[in-house]
Amino acid sequence: MSELKAQMDQLGKAAKAAAQDLALAPAEAKNNALKAAAQAMRAQLPTILEANKKDMAAAEAKGISSAMLDRLALDPDRIEAMAKGLEAIAAFPDPVGKSLESWEQPNGLKFEKVSVPLGVIGIIYESRPNVTADAGALCLKAGNASILRGGSESFHSSGAILTCLQIGLESAGLPIAAIQRVPTTDRAAVGHLLTMNDYVDLIIPRGGRGLIERIQTESRVPVLAHLDGLCHTYLHKSADPKMALEVVLNAKMRRTGVCGATETLLVDDAFADDDLKPILKRLIAKGCEIRGDTAIQALDKRINKAVEADWDTEYLDAIISIRKVNGLIDAIAHINRHGSHHTEAIITEDSSAAAAFQQEVDAGIVIHNASTQFADGGQFGMGAEIGISTGKLHARGPVGANQLTSYKYLVRGNGHARP
Amino acid sequence: MSELKAQMDQLGKAAKAAAQDLALAPAEAKNNALKAAAQAMRAQLPTILEANKKDMAAAEAKGISSAMLDRLALDPDRIEAMAKGLEAIAAFPDPVGKSLESWEQPNGLKFEKVSVPLGVIGIIYESRPNVTADAGALCLKAGNASILRGGSESFHSSGAILTCLQIGLESAGLPIAAIQRVPTTDRAAVGHLLTMNDYVDLIIPRGGRGLIERIQTESRVPVLAHLDGLCHTYLHKSADPKMALEVVLNAKMRRTGVCGATETLLVDDAFADDDLKPILKRLIAKGCEIRGDTAIQALDKRINKAVEADWDTEYLDAIISIRKVNGLIDAIAHINRHGSHHTEAIITEDSSAAAAFQQEVDAGIVIHNASTQFADGGQFGMGAEIGISTGKLHARGPVGANQLTSYKYLVRGNGHARP
Repeated sequence: MSELKAQMDQLGKAAKAAAQDLALAPAEAKNNALKAAAQAMRAQLPTILEANKKDMAAAEAKGISSAMLDRLALDPDRIEAMAKGLEAIAAFPDPVGKSLESWEQPNGLKFEKVSVPLGVIGIIYESRPNVTADAGALCLKAGNASILRGGSESFHSSGAILTCLQIGLESAGLPIAAIQRVPTTDRAAVGHLLTMNDYVDLIIPRGGRGLIERIQTESRVPVLAHLDGLCHTYLHKSADPKMALEVVLNAKMRRTGVCGATETLLVDDAFADDDLKPILKRLIAKGCEIRGDTAIQALDKRINKAVEADWDTEYLDAIISIRKVNGLIDAIAHINRHGSHHTEAIITEDSSAAAAFQQEVDAGIVIHNASTQFADGGQFGMGAEIGISTGKLHARGPVGANQLTSYKYLVRGNGHARP
Repeated sequence: MSELKAQMDQLGKAAKAAAQDLALAPAEAKNNALKAAAQAMRAQLPTILEANKKDMAAAEAKGISSAMLDRLALDPDRIEAMAKGLEAIAAFPDPVGKSLESWEQPNGLKFEKVSVPLGVIGIIYESRPNVTADAGALCLKAGNASILRGGSESFHSSGAILTCLQIGLESAGLPIAAIQRVPTTDRAAVGHLLTMNDYVDLIIPRGGRGLIERIQTESRVPVLAHLDGLCHTYLHKSADPKMALEVVLNAKMRRTGVCGATETLLVDDAFADDDLKPILKRLIAKGCEIRGDTAIQALDKRINKAVEADWDTEYLDAIISIRKVNGLIDAIAHINRHGSHHTEAIITEDSSAAAAFQQEVDAGIVIHNASTQFADGGQFGMGAEIGISTGKLHARGPVGANQLTSYKYLVRGNGHARP
């Protein structure tokens, strides 16, 4: 066995033991750990900034893009936001030990379904160092031990943040192995993590499609994946034009790099061109490139031609593809064919059209008369989220602390023997 | 591409298309299909028996065990029981389109979580032909298309049963591809099924540990596995001796071949030997072999010595291993180390001991003062079940129609743009 494999096994064993303790830890201990970790972050501000400086210097030397540098950068405000994030998670109701359902059978046997932690969760993510804090904290809140593996660019920053989390765990009397990280940037470590099904119960990857698909293919541990957010907004013939304008602008342009951003706008043939033109104009005025089908292109000379690939592209940028559709059924068919089952929206004043759309569109989140950018655990009232699951197993849509739990059945009898 | 692979892909495509129709099918159509399938089974009784005769003759020629022959055999009673099973599933409330939760955020956005089907489910099982009816019907009830792969011994029987299910689908106006089976006994077909993640959303294996572990290793599709049922009953020092006697006898001997049968009895040091002896005697009188530790062996000469492997063995037979434990903590430690996270029971009059046991034992079903043989979806009031999940993801414990669903979030706004 290679040294790295032995080291990873050690990590896994420690995580499993910690998970057994955490499963029985009272809510107060977990919350105290989170609050103490937030305090530690404030106290260790200079150390975290110092570590981040190292990462930034190395990243600049490697010539990575300015967008990635921005994701990597920490400053006192971002560190305070991380600390506040930990405190917000601490304030959230405990997801473990909740009575989810209870009933009694005619023979007098009583049944109760109670939430329990999942066990050990491996989180694989790219360069944002704040994920170290968010992911570790959410797993802890749900009673799970975590093994974190961040992008190599953020190695020092993540290490400094992890130290704060472990200070919090220790001060609350919880095992520090409750939150660990892969202690090397060696890529082979990920390969080991994905086969440690004796110790790891779930892998959650965050990042680009390439990373996630590689993990889904290689992993022997179940994967909860957040794939693309190829979101659509559909303007039904009965859409209120003023609402359509405001919602579409927000859905596309509020932030273009988030997974809930609308990438394709579908416009009903019966939606008036005179109501559509101001939307196109405002998008262009805001710096959005429009790629349209022939009918859309006819409305403004600045609109580029959409090619077939546009209907399958998540731009994550100030680009939108727009096409006309022939009614509700056509819109739903386009979405179910090209969408990524993430978040889809209809704008309409017709409640039966809205109901049909919400029933027939196959996506984790289906919205009527609001921006697709509400696709976010915080906006759902779930507190922090670790991502948005695009699969249908275990958890679909935003994954917060409640979604990081399983359940068990407690059965209570009075000497019942089964006939 | 091999011909078999092409054939399997065809099956997958048809299943996916059928699943899209099924997801929108009203409850009535699904229930009509189930009731018509039950009628078809009664009408086709001679054909099913004829097909079963072929399977039985081939199996006898191959010299398979009498236990397996019994599992394979159909007679008019068993066929009537299958038909009644379909009707019972039809009578069960529809698991799709249920409002699971709803809430409103302070900004006025309304959220509703609604159950939806999973999609396409592949079911791989061994020789019992009735699984063809149960599994196909449960998937249909939950709006899922299924691809069934039964043991080769039951090939003709399963085919005749499938014909009845498809007659039911057709008469209800549902696509017959909603329930299909792998049309060959070629083992390579299973390998293809496990990699068809473009078409198949979930694999449910039923059968021996070897089959299931092979599937878990090979599958690129998520697997919902039912592994061993290595169940324990623990006699706490405050157990009522009369209840202990009745529950233990039932837990072990009611049926020895079911996954909820108790395999190991843990007896508290402080539980009186005089109360234990009658239990041992009755077990032996019922034909149960006892394998005990030294303390247990001292109580009756007919008790064999338990070796270390006994604590990790699921006998599925009239054999029980028994050992003394030093209190509640020792009992829980033994169970969490040797159990299979399936079903565990404590017998005690002490409610705080029961509560600690139910919290700390890591199993899908944890029982107080009742037989472990209640581990069954029907006994839970779930209607039919497709198995008992021993994993923690998606579904844990009995898997009935409700557990074969996912959910989506419906969000309703009034022109909400995200700040």
